[in-house]
Formats: sequence, structure tokens, C-alpha cells
Amino acid sequence: MKFKPYRSPSTGCEVRAVLFDTFGTVVDWRTGVARQAAAFAAAHRQDLDAEAFADDWRSLYQPAMEAIRSGSREFATLDTLHRENLDQVLRHHGFDPDRLDARTLEELNRSWHRLPPWPDSLEGLASVRRGYIVGPLSNGNTSLLLDMARNAGLPWDVIIGSDMTRAYKPLPAAYLRTAEFLDFRPGAVMLVAAHNNDLRAAREAGLATAFIARPTEYGQGQVADLAPESDWDLSASSITELAHELGA
Amino acid sequence: MKFKPYRSPSTGCEVRAVLFDTFGTVVDWRTGVARQAAAFAAAHRQDLDAEAFADDWRSLYQPAMEAIRSGSREFATLDTLHRENLDQVLRHHGFDPDRLDARTLEELNRSWHRLPPWPDSLEGLASVRRGYIVGPLSNGNTSLLLDMARNAGLPWDVIIGSDMTRAYKPLPAAYLRTAEFLDFRPGAVMLVAAHNNDLRAAREAGLATAFIARPTEYGQGQVADLAPESDWDLSASSITELAHELGA
Repeated sequence: MKFKPYRSPSTGCEVRAVLFDTFGTVVDWRTGVARQAAAFAAAHRQDLDAEAFADDWRSLYQPAMEAIRSGSREFATLDTLHRENLDQVLRHHGFDPDRLDARTLEELNRSWHRLPPWPDSLEGLASVRRGYIVGPLSNGNTSLLLDMARNAGLPWDVIIGSDMTRAYKPLPAAYLRTAEFLDFRPGAVMLVAAHNNDLRAAREAGLATAFIARPTEYGQGQVADLAPESDWDLSASSITELAHELGA
Repeated sequence: MKFKPYRSPSTGCEVRAVLFDTFGTVVDWRTGVARQAAAFAAAHRQDLDAEAFADDWRSLYQPAMEAIRSGSREFATLDTLHRENLDQVLRHHGFDPDRLDARTLEELNRSWHRLPPWPDSLEGLASVRRGYIVGPLSNGNTSLLLDMARNAGLPWDVIIGSDMTRAYKPLPAAYLRTAEFLDFRPGAVMLVAAHNNDLRAAREAGLATAFIARPTEYGQGQVADLAPESDWDLSASSITELAHELGA
């Protein structure tokens, strides 16, 4: 049987590229960062609530991007923002960043380059890739996403980092410039995300949308994004299930 | 045995990313374009010297980019330039582009998206990839390079098109912005090319360099680029041989 591309009900277009939010949707940032933070703390013979450390670091990410989205700060990469935020998180957890050498801090910052995929991600992406172009649509910069892909084995066809679009989601330009680099109408591009607000912005920009449930992204007590909050084109509990729904 | 990155004598850096000029170095544009032009001519029951057609189309490429390099024209993608040049080539070979429908012209223009790899390219790139990040460093735009990769099976880790750097080789920015997206010093990036002038510009921008001989890129009567014209870091007769020299 010849593969027939999925047609998005919301955009009316056949989908050609299926792009994935990465942090939380494809990789488990919380487990990955916590594990590496725990190893760092152990090497420094200091106690650490590693999950709280990961949560705190992640929580500083939106405010840092917001300064850039609003135009009050020039574009800076996510690696740069993570590195700036790291000092604050370290202090909050009893470490003095000024007493740590630059290489140690840089290595810890690169925790975000070495995140583990969710159990279904590799198989699911390989399946989707048989019928569609696959890539990240993330706020990560290109080199971060590239390292992550090589470390985790993510089979991307193309990586368009936020340093290429020079725009952070959920600004419309982040979605639209990505579609433009791919030379597709926005409606021929699908965003897959575990976050309803990301999908909302993608839909407003004219993209097709799919929700993947990641109910433990924020740990066992997660309260948000447990279910789709709108009639996204597709909704699945894993990327393998999504591949099936896409007919790939 | 643990993999040890190759250290470039010219830059003094360990090479981390090995990037390839694509048209001519990785894919055989002349054979690919000629084959598709011949099919087009046959469908229109018209005679065509298909190799001359390919050569003529290719020869319009440098002048078109030069207008952009010099600043006399805003950036336009290679797909756009190819499409503009196509009208001229068609007329030169006895076709009236105004009497052809837009879809036919677009399909012919996409010949450049469907070029065959040289016999050693797939195996060679897969070998290099075991030890290094691999990608194109081409004047092609991202969507062109992505289509080409999917059609030919080129195993790129990352694709940084000229629409991302907004600069055409051999301008220094084309090389330097590519290294910047990868977050590497220029000296940790190697350009592999079958063209001495491309390597000359890459070296001036601070990149490591490797020459691959493609003595029939322009057909049997080729006179230029038959051999390395400088002491490039490496020189090989195929990408598989290059992989061996890189220790990958």
C-alpha cells in the first residue's frame, strides 16, 4: 500500500513535516537533569534535592525567554540562558558558583544536551519518519538540539534551532519561520507537543497540531497538561501511537 | 580502541564537525540534472543535449549568486535562482518557458532536489559520522538540501542551509556563521570539497580543509580541480578514503 499523507482537519492541508517540541515531549528533562545534578552534588560531597534542583532550573527558563520575546533583551541562546540561570539555582541549593571552576559549570550546564528520550521516542520518531520529515520545533539552540540528538539517538531529518528563527515559542515567528525554512505552508507542518499552550500558539500560527500526554514530565504530582484541552488534530499517549494515527 | 578526533595541522584544533560541499562533492549534479532534463525533453518530444543543458544551467549559478554576494540584490534562495535561470536555459535549448505550465517548470527545477550521490558518498558519510558531526556546507537552501538528503539517503546530523547563514560561499560569513550555529571554533570545523577555491576561502575563514577528487564532475573533459592545488589538511579520492584518514 502506498503511503498517503495525513490531511489535517484544522488546516485542510496534507501534513508533510511533523515537528516535535523536545523538552518534555521527546526527552525527559527532569530525570535527566536531576541525575546529572545528583552526580555533581555527590562529587562535591554535598546533599541535594536533585528533582527540586531540576524543577527550579527549569522554572527560570520562561522568565529569561520572556525578556527576549518582549524585546527588552537581544536574542541569546537557550544555552546562554541556562548558564545564567544556573548560578541562581546553585546558590538557592547551597552552592557558591564563584567557587566552582568554569569547566565544571559548563559541564553541568550541558546536562540539557544529554537528556534521555522517553521510552517510546526513538521507535516512534523512526516510524513517523518513514512517512514525514521529522525534526524538533523547540526553544533550544541548534548545537544543543544536535548534541541531544547524537547523545539520545534521535533520528531527526533536520534541526531548525531557535537561533535560526531568532524567535522563542510561543511567538508566531517561531512557528512561521520554521515552516518557511522547510518551504512548506504552515498548514503542511504539524507541531507535536505535550503542552497545550504550545499547541494553542501553533494553531494560531496556522500549523496542524497533535497532543502527546506526558503525565510525569513534572514528576508524580503533575497537575497541568494531563490531557488535551482542545480539539487538536490528533491526540496520543505516545509517539508510537501518533505514528499509527498518522498512517506512517 | 577509543576514537580520537583528528587534529588539523593548519588550525591546531581537534576537528569535531566535518561538513561537505554538496553539489559535485557529495552528489553528481551533472548526471542527475541531465537525466531529468532528458526525460523532460522526451515528454515534450523534443531533442536535447542533456549534458549541455545541465552545464549551461549550472554555469548561470555563480553570476546569480554574485549579485547577492556583492549586495546589489537582496538574499534569494538557490531554488529561486535556479528557477530564474531555468527560463534562460530553456530558451537557449529551444524551449519556450512561457508555453510550459508552472507545475512542469517547478518539477524540472526540483531536479536539483533529486541528485544521485557519488558511489562512495553514502558509505563514506556513514563512516565519518561515527566519529564526527556531519552535515552539508553548501550554497543550497535548507529545504533543497533536506529533500536531497531524503531522496539520496544522505545521513546528515544537521543541515545548515545558506538561507540560515544568509551568505553564499565563498564569502567568509558563509563558513563562520555555520561554525557559530554549531557552537564550534572555526578551526574545529572541516570543510570537505572537490573545489580548490571553496577550500581556499574556508581556510582563510579559519576552517580545517580536505580535498576530494571528483575528476568527472564536469564530464570526461574536465580540466579544473583534478588535484589538490594547496597543502590542504587532507586529500582523498573518495569519502570512504577520507573517513579512513580521519580515523573514523
